[in-house]
Amino acid sequence: MNVAFLGLGAIGAPMAGHLAAPPFALTVWNRTRERALRFVETHRGARVADTAAEAVRGAEFVITCVPSSREVEALVDGELLDAIPAGALFIDCTSGDPATSRHLAERLAERGIGFVDAPVSGGVIGAEKGTLTVMVGGDAALLDRARPVLAAFGEKIVHCGAIGAGDALKAVNNALLAVHLWSTAEGLAVLERAGVRADIALDVINTSSGRSNASMNLFPERVLTRAFPRTFRLALLDKDVGIGADLARQQKVPAPILQLTAELFRMAHATLGEEADHVEAARIVEQWAAVTIGGPRPSADAPTGVSPNNELEQEL
Amino acid sequence: MNVAFLGLGAIGAPMAGHLAAPPFALTVWNRTRERALRFVETHRGARVADTAAEAVRGAEFVITCVPSSREVEALVDGELLDAIPAGALFIDCTSGDPATSRHLAERLAERGIGFVDAPVSGGVIGAEKGTLTVMVGGDAALLDRARPVLAAFGEKIVHCGAIGAGDALKAVNNALLAVHLWSTAEGLAVLERAGVRADIALDVINTSSGRSNASMNLFPERVLTRAFPRTFRLALLDKDVGIGADLARQQKVPAPILQLTAELFRMAHATLGEEADHVEAARIVEQWAAVTIGGPRPSADAPTGVSPNNELEQEL
Amino acid sequence: MNVAFLGLGAIGAPMAGHLAAPPFALTVWNRTRERALRFVETHRGARVADTAAEAVRGAEFVITCVPSSREVEALVDGELLDAIPAGALFIDCTSGDPATSRHLAERLAERGIGFVDAPVSGGVIGAEKGTLTVMVGGDAALLDRARPVLAAFGEKIVHCGAIGAGDALKAVNNALLAVHLWSTAEGLAVLERAGVRADIALDVINTSSGRSNASMNLFPERVLTRAFPRTFRLALLDKDVGIGADLARQQKVPAPILQLTAELFRMAHATLGEEADHVEAARIVEQWAAVTIGGPRPSADAPTGVSPNNELEQEL
Amino acid sequence: MNVAFLGLGAIGAPMAGHLAAPPFALTVWNRTRERALRFVETHRGARVADTAAEAVRGAEFVITCVPSSREVEALVDGELLDAIPAGALFIDCTSGDPATSRHLAERLAERGIGFVDAPVSGGVIGAEKGTLTVMVGGDAALLDRARPVLAAFGEKIVHCGAIGAGDALKAVNNALLAVHLWSTAEGLAVLERAGVRADIALDVINTSSGRSNASMNLFPERVLTRAFPRTFRLALLDKDVGIGADLARQQKVPAPILQLTAELFRMAHATLGEEADHVEAARIVEQWAAVTIGGPRPSADAPTGVSPNNELEQEL
Repeated sequence: MNVAFLGLGAIGAPMAGHLAAPPFALTVWNRTRERALRFVETHRGARVADTAAEAVRGAEFVITCVPSSREVEALVDGELLDAIPAGALFIDCTSGDPATSRHLAERLAERGIGFVDAPVSGGVIGAEKGTLTVMVGGDAALLDRARPVLAAFGEKIVHCGAIGAGDALKAVNNALLAVHLWSTAEGLAVLERAGVRADIALDVINTSSGRSNASMNLFPERVLTRAFPRTFRLALLDKDVGIGADLARQQKVPAPILQLTAELFRMAHATLGEEADHVEAARIVEQWAAVTIGGPRPSADAPTGVSPNNELEQEL
Repeated sequence: MNVAFLGLGAIGAPMAGHLAAPPFALTVWNRTRERALRFVETHRGARVADTAAEAVRGAEFVITCVPSSREVEALVDGELLDAIPAGALFIDCTSGDPATSRHLAERLAERGIGFVDAPVSGGVIGAEKGTLTVMVGGDAALLDRARPVLAAFGEKIVHCGAIGAGDALKAVNNALLAVHLWSTAEGLAVLERAGVRADIALDVINTSSGRSNASMNLFPERVLTRAFPRTFRLALLDKDVGIGADLARQQKVPAPILQLTAELFRMAHATLGEEADHVEAARIVEQWAAVTIGGPRPSADAPTGVSPNNELEQEL
Repeated sequence: MNVAFLGLGAIGAPMAGHLAAPPFALTVWNRTRERALRFVETHRGARVADTAAEAVRGAEFVITCVPSSREVEALVDGELLDAIPAGALFIDCTSGDPATSRHLAERLAERGIGFVDAPVSGGVIGAEKGTLTVMVGGDAALLDRARPVLAAFGEKIVHCGAIGAGDALKAVNNALLAVHLWSTAEGLAVLERAGVRADIALDVINTSSGRSNASMNLFPERVLTRAFPRTFRLALLDKDVGIGADLARQQKVPAPILQLTAELFRMAHATLGEEADHVEAARIVEQWAAVTIGGPRPSADAPTGVSPNNELEQEL
Repeated sequence: MNVAFLGLGAIGAPMAGHLAAPPFALTVWNRTRERALRFVETHRGARVADTAAEAVRGAEFVITCVPSSREVEALVDGELLDAIPAGALFIDCTSGDPATSRHLAERLAERGIGFVDAPVSGGVIGAEKGTLTVMVGGDAALLDRARPVLAAFGEKIVHCGAIGAGDALKAVNNALLAVHLWSTAEGLAVLERAGVRADIALDVINTSSGRSNASMNLFPERVLTRAFPRTFRLALLDKDVGIGADLARQQKVPAPILQLTAELFRMAHATLGEEADHVEAARIVEQWAAVTIGGPRPSADAPTGVSPNNELEQEL
């Protein structure tokens, strides 16, 4: 199976890695060529293309994994529309927006090219282990065609609905992550100021009804430790929350918490810049509250119950 | 150990049940006398008092478990202050507010009576099994005195800080529950309208970064099934979110999501009345969005992955 | 000057009335034909067209005044694109959205037809008196061409910027109206519950720093009197706030109050239906607060300072 | 009439100035003694007291005009309760909170001292001219007694209701000011980014339905000019919005816009510090939006319609 993989970022590269051996014949391309060259050094079965157009020539499957639908659209408009063979299947693993996906699907259909949106969840670790969850929007028959390729890196492949349904679900999932992240920061900041230590608070919350992925994983591993590893950019989460919030508005669903959260992440993005990790949103809450959530204590009684975790990426 | 237990509600009664045998000598009282009579029918070791004042006479430990700090204050002002023996320990298991707890502690201290706030989490099931989490605020020495009593119904007893710290943590935990409940309803309503079924969405979210106790337990068991069992009143969650939001303001922590959530639950409470369950807040989102989250489908492909669960109460 | 006027609604009809005599030669069209027939009965100088296409044949100026950009787009796509003469100027007086206006302008430009967006403010009274404010987006030279036509119904003609600038300003103005309307309702509801009568409160606010068009005109004339005349539909204000909120998001401006207000009006629209007047949003606040703002008092001391006003429309 | 005036700040000093001549016998006190000495230099009829207790000795009227109810309470608890003669009337012109006022009234009543809350609006200019609006809460008979004193600096004296009603109305008025200030900044920031100049936008908005005191006075005079004069501290407006928001919660009125605005001003206060003027909140919106509202333009077409205004204070 001839596969073209475009976009070898933190998630894309390990995903493509699973396609670099038979039965797949893999051609890769990346905007920054160095990344592509590095990829083929460790994946001898893969071939580097000089251009995106060259990568897709002869491809049965074209996979994109880029920051946003904007980049997908630019590629399709720029080089791909004329270069992808009729009959091929375009699998967009970008965390995209449903409207652009529908628009792309229409344009590709005119050339006889199928389209599914197939954003993934599971982070770098999931991509490396090939245990990603793949959320697929599009025709069931196209999903069946895509399945062998998706199964190479995905453990759980879910048909979510028509084109854009995968994007929609990914955006809402990430919007909920954003809500939980910010609200947990608010709650812990209030408690710290009221004299309740964040590690004690999390110890209780995580066995109680207020727990979430944010409280169970992100805060113990990344905030209380002050580690704030850079695994998923705040800028990208801002984009995802924005997609979710826009979708709510298009669907005429009053969603005050999602909308407010979109504003808060927009603001955090403007304040913290392009490189900040998404969990650093908690720093804004800390600044506003003039308090640190966790971190070193004057006395020796260090936070407890926080174990080092090598699977930081797993949830993203 | 002579224990007086005031307030035999859904949580209070099973808590008191663990104190109805030696080494405890239990006297109970309840505003509605029938509940107290019913309690002693099945707990022959306990005695019913005609009044709250009578119940606390001779008590070493006075435990209250009532709807809010307002009721605790009314009891103390009304009958208890003069009736509780000097040297006794007052253990308030109400989900109270920190300021009132501090005020009560001061007044009781003037009479030589100790005070700890000790709200619980774990729901009816946890109360029955004696596996509650108890969040204690107050002096460490008083907690040590209270420990044998608390251990009768609590598995995890956490010293959270000074007086009011237990209340604060409980309020923030419940405020986060409220945030997650409402925002997940928003997200699922948007997805349903965009053509993504709630059961499919939850199947993905619950293995991804957007999951919370609300998405993992409340929505599958209570909303998608349309069961909406009445286990924890929305009116009480409204009260708890309000305590959390007020605490944020007192602590001068800008907490836009907590505050907005407090408004939404206030509004839901005003709309749905006193008897509605807290999960019915999702009904408001459904009405606004003109959509049902889950529920019967036209076709035969019923929601999957939702197992009946007898432990609905566990998380509350 | 040959003018085609499409859309004879509450505002459109009196606007068109100013164009029904020389130097203008007016042809009108309305989706509901009866309105057009009624119009020409009282404006003998105007001619009714059977179709929109027929109306614009030979026109130098095509004016649209319809509920939203969606209807303008439907007209252009459906009948107008092929029917409007090259060299004509399309003046869209709809309260439209900037993106659609830019899109329309491009498509019309391909046929040699100019475009300006020119939404109006001033209400029915302003339209009748010919004293509207017209907010124009587009090329300055095109505005110069449009000016004689706009001056027939507009007193203040403001060049706001490029295409879409008129729409943007109109949307933001109406979004502010919505913010003021809702927040004033909140404030007066709080005061009524705290024992401060709304008429007394407005008497003070309207000479103080908290005053707005809502407090100075809408509440005294429409809410305290319980008149709630239907002059501008809530559904349309919901649309306008939505345009403003979308614009904020496109421009990457964190605007939490505008976004929250958009949610509230979306919800009010869903609750109160298509026919409710925009000021009836105050009824939602009243329901939530279980209070009436103003209205009959038990005693004889009726609200003061509220004079009947025939110019209710003036501000819209 | 023996009058003691405590608190000679920006508003208090000119208010007291109207009481420094017969029929009034005025004694003044200020925490910072220099201000009191400066006052009597220009008001030879007044006497300086060394302490607050000395100031009120023999007073028929005690007037306080301090930053918040907290300072009033500290004065009453500290020195005044024992020093004010029975039969005197305590007139609190502070922008206070209703609950503290009720509490103070009770304590003073026990000593036979009357109390009215009487916050003012009209700013420094109004205080100087004696044209303030006075919002009075308390017994009508006490207001009648207070009237000669209030009339010395107030033009419009409004009986708002029971004790605390004046505070409540003042807080809600200022909360609305805060809402309008922030939302107008949001709207103008969006427009600037969309290419619509703020001066043009205000020119239209101020003849349309979106106008408010903020758009008509504060933005043209203070923001577009980049003058941001320091006339009313953001810290004090934060306090007032907080009082309004707390009152909404106590009254069980869902008020999402007031609550969100309280959070925004809390955050702005934390960010901009104690000395910033309230209008500088617009700077936060500008930072988030990466845009300047008004200010110098590259070309010569300066903002129009903005006249210098010496009455900046008038609205506050």
